[in-house]
Amino acid sequence: MSQIRGTLIREGKAKILYETAPPSDNVIQFFKDDATAFNAEKRGQIVGKGAINAAISTWVFEHLESKGIPTHFVEHLSERELLTRKLEMIPVEIVVRNRAAGSLVRRLGISKGSELAPPLVEYFYKSDALGDPLIGETHILQFGWASAAELHQMRERALAVNAALVPWFESIGLDLIDFKLEFGRTREHTLVLADEFSPDGCRLWDRTTSEPMDKDRFRHDLGGVQEAYAEVYQRLLNRRGGKR
Amino acid sequence: MSQIRGTLIREGKAKILYETAPPSDNVIQFFKDDATAFNAEKRGQIVGKGAINAAISTWVFEHLESKGIPTHFVEHLSERELLTRKLEMIPVEIVVRNRAAGSLVRRLGISKGSELAPPLVEYFYKSDALGDPLIGETHILQFGWASAAELHQMRERALAVNAALVPWFESIGLDLIDFKLEFGRTREHTLVLADEFSPDGCRLWDRTTSEPMDKDRFRHDLGGVQEAYAEVYQRLLNRRGGKR
Repeated sequence: MSQIRGTLIREGKAKILYETAPPSDNVIQFFKDDATAFNAEKRGQIVGKGAINAAISTWVFEHLESKGIPTHFVEHLSERELLTRKLEMIPVEIVVRNRAAGSLVRRLGISKGSELAPPLVEYFYKSDALGDPLIGETHILQFGWASAAELHQMRERALAVNAALVPWFESIGLDLIDFKLEFGRTREHTLVLADEFSPDGCRLWDRTTSEPMDKDRFRHDLGGVQEAYAEVYQRLLNRRGGKR
Repeated sequence: MSQIRGTLIREGKAKILYETAPPSDNVIQFFKDDATAFNAEKRGQIVGKGAINAAISTWVFEHLESKGIPTHFVEHLSERELLTRKLEMIPVEIVVRNRAAGSLVRRLGISKGSELAPPLVEYFYKSDALGDPLIGETHILQFGWASAAELHQMRERALAVNAALVPWFESIGLDLIDFKLEFGRTREHTLVLADEFSPDGCRLWDRTTSEPMDKDRFRHDLGGVQEAYAEVYQRLLNRRGGKR
């Protein structure tokens, strides 16, 4: 199915969201090369990131759907474009952590890399103005950001995503350290996984070298940013036997 | 019962903890006039605070016990000394909020004074080194700071404390805006309310003038700090018909 862009709905830090033309129950996600970190205090570009993240997101969503986890993914339209379902977004980022890294290390003084078993689930309130603050389940229910049933489902689904992706990335030599998910409601009020899944929103460490292969290379000026994204893309492509 | 101080166990920001002499299943809390705020970046003294907080804590604990909520309180030994049960402390501060104030306003951009119904429950990890960071229930269970049963009990008890204290303070013309509690385990592994309950760890607003009658006067240099503590003490004393 071919589909052309309609009205711009919203431009985010890494993606632009468009209506379809004519408008439908779907929207078009356009993946930019723009990268931001530390609540957009650091800004830059990672050449080719848009196309890479669109492809990786597609493959992740397809894999998750094959495991019975519903997502907003409809179709990979073009190099940088995904057709996805139109959703009412839940303003919560849910993070699953298999090992301590990033803000968790700073906040709770846990040594970087230490194993979290079972995986730790954290929640953040999606607000650029407030810097995406950490919240607990009590805040989500108090302020009606999700119902108790939705919160339970988000948590269960996030852990199911983790269970599906840990061995998947392991098979291409990468440890899935942590990742961020967002969920939304369809018009029929069912909860589906939304947003994207890419090295922008997860940590992947090479199982041989322990090197980060994700946005931490950009955040901490480690160099080889573009190469790391391309390497994750290439390994996943090889795993698929070269079929895009 | 008279009881004399033994070995010093630990000196905190507002209290010193002593063994009894000879050692027993109880300890002695000595209430200092020292006051700190903003993770001890601000330090000072509030003259008479130690005696006032010891008395207010006594009356609060007695009132809560009368409502069936178990506490560590044993006896008001002297002006600044409480005899309390020796506990293994749970390293979590549980906060109940009836109206938005303090860190909640800054963190989530909620207007000061806005009503929270039902009351909002928040958790903080008790660590001076980390600045008592906000945590969620998932962190408490993950790091074994409390069991699921204890967490449930802490939450239920904190809400029961709120239900007992809101009308109690209302009867002396004060709105209980929020408060912090700590819990500990007895040698028999039962959970009891610990620490203290005083204007150091809660917010009380005068129902007529809306003026804060608590440590916010010290935090924000509002003046009349000593007078506010004395006023809360005096109103509670009058309510008891003058009997200490």
